[in-house]
Amino acid sequence: MNKIAVVLMSGGMDSALCVAIALKEGYEVAALHLNYHHRTQAREERAFNDICNYYGISRRLIVDVGYFKQIGGSSLTDLQIDVPKAKFDKNEIPNTYVPFRNGNILAIGASWAETLGAEALFIGAVEQDSSGYPDCRAEFFRAFEQALNYGTKPDTHIKIVTPIIHLSKKEIVQQAILLNVPLYLTWSCYTNEDAACGECESCLLRLRGFEQAGYIDPIRYVNKANE
Amino acid sequence: MNKIAVVLMSGGMDSALCVAIALKEGYEVAALHLNYHHRTQAREERAFNDICNYYGISRRLIVDVGYFKQIGGSSLTDLQIDVPKAKFDKNEIPNTYVPFRNGNILAIGASWAETLGAEALFIGAVEQDSSGYPDCRAEFFRAFEQALNYGTKPDTHIKIVTPIIHLSKKEIVQQAILLNVPLYLTWSCYTNEDAACGECESCLLRLRGFEQAGYIDPIRYVNKANE
Repeated sequence: MNKIAVVLMSGGMDSALCVAIALKEGYEVAALHLNYHHRTQAREERAFNDICNYYGISRRLIVDVGYFKQIGGSSLTDLQIDVPKAKFDKNEIPNTYVPFRNGNILAIGASWAETLGAEALFIGAVEQDSSGYPDCRAEFFRAFEQALNYGTKPDTHIKIVTPIIHLSKKEIVQQAILLNVPLYLTWSCYTNEDAACGECESCLLRLRGFEQAGYIDPIRYVNKANE
Repeated sequence: MNKIAVVLMSGGMDSALCVAIALKEGYEVAALHLNYHHRTQAREERAFNDICNYYGISRRLIVDVGYFKQIGGSSLTDLQIDVPKAKFDKNEIPNTYVPFRNGNILAIGASWAETLGAEALFIGAVEQDSSGYPDCRAEFFRAFEQALNYGTKPDTHIKIVTPIIHLSKKEIVQQAILLNVPLYLTWSCYTNEDAACGECESCLLRLRGFEQAGYIDPIRYVNKANE
């Protein structure tokens, strides 16, 4: 029997690289996408399915976590709050932060992983470029892995794998190209669904990564912030 | 400003006792109920609201976690699997187990707690009578609390409080009566919504607790298993 990994996939390039890494390590990938009623949900879900199709991943689960909207406190889920223009201030946590989002995502992933008998749960968190989100740091993932293994059956052992946590966006682009990740299918923009805005924090991080890696981002932008 | 506690409330007597304890400790209670498409969801939600009304708790949140149905693997969410008759076998994890359910519940509670600026997250888990669920053990809650505080903002400090974890059902009944908990408003049965079945594991644990404490359970049963 193949060893299984649940891979959390937003549809962005970080998680697409994680899929490529999991496959290279010999895992059968089960792809988990979260619909938390994002501004750009439909576009991300298309990217999720496109990437799954590209890799022939049939085991997919899309989970509705609309409750984030009820809990509020974030510009990504509360349409009354504007998405801020990127600032790159490492000391300030931006209002795109959904409280303990990764804690919720990992808990869902853990439930599915235990049900499937999976050995690993991959998440494409990136510490350096993560806007200071506390639930993107390596020490959080280690602590959560411990909690996870205390909270599941004795014969369940699930590793939380964060293969790109210490990479820069430049290195992510480089590795993705090395592993033939279909970057043209990925989506990162927080604001738009047709052509990426090129101005939100997520777009700027992505564009800067491509620029520093010396490649042209294959997706379409309204304003090319890197030109 | 009052100190706030998020209290997870199923509508059963354990969580009702937790509310009474949190109020006694001076917390303003924010009540969180999970709808995970339980067999007896409607009845539990009524109990949740009845208990909130009794205590004058206006800050309530009901979160739909229907995704447990998608993940499956449990008789409580999968109507194709029969709920087993109680066995009290400590070594076997019954099929009423939803994988890592408390991990998910705590993650949701943590998100809401951070949004509200709450200091504590109460959960009425009971180690002894918890049918061997791994996510009901004290060590799991300590590990999760650590993960939670790594994964939230630096100025967020949330305690996970499990005030009844080492109590027996007998002691829970005794304490609840001592604190005037409206036990007649609570619901525990896994199977029925009108009169409790008296035969499922949850009913038997409850009835045994009342019997050992020397009280009569005020709710209505189809079959009085304690007679």
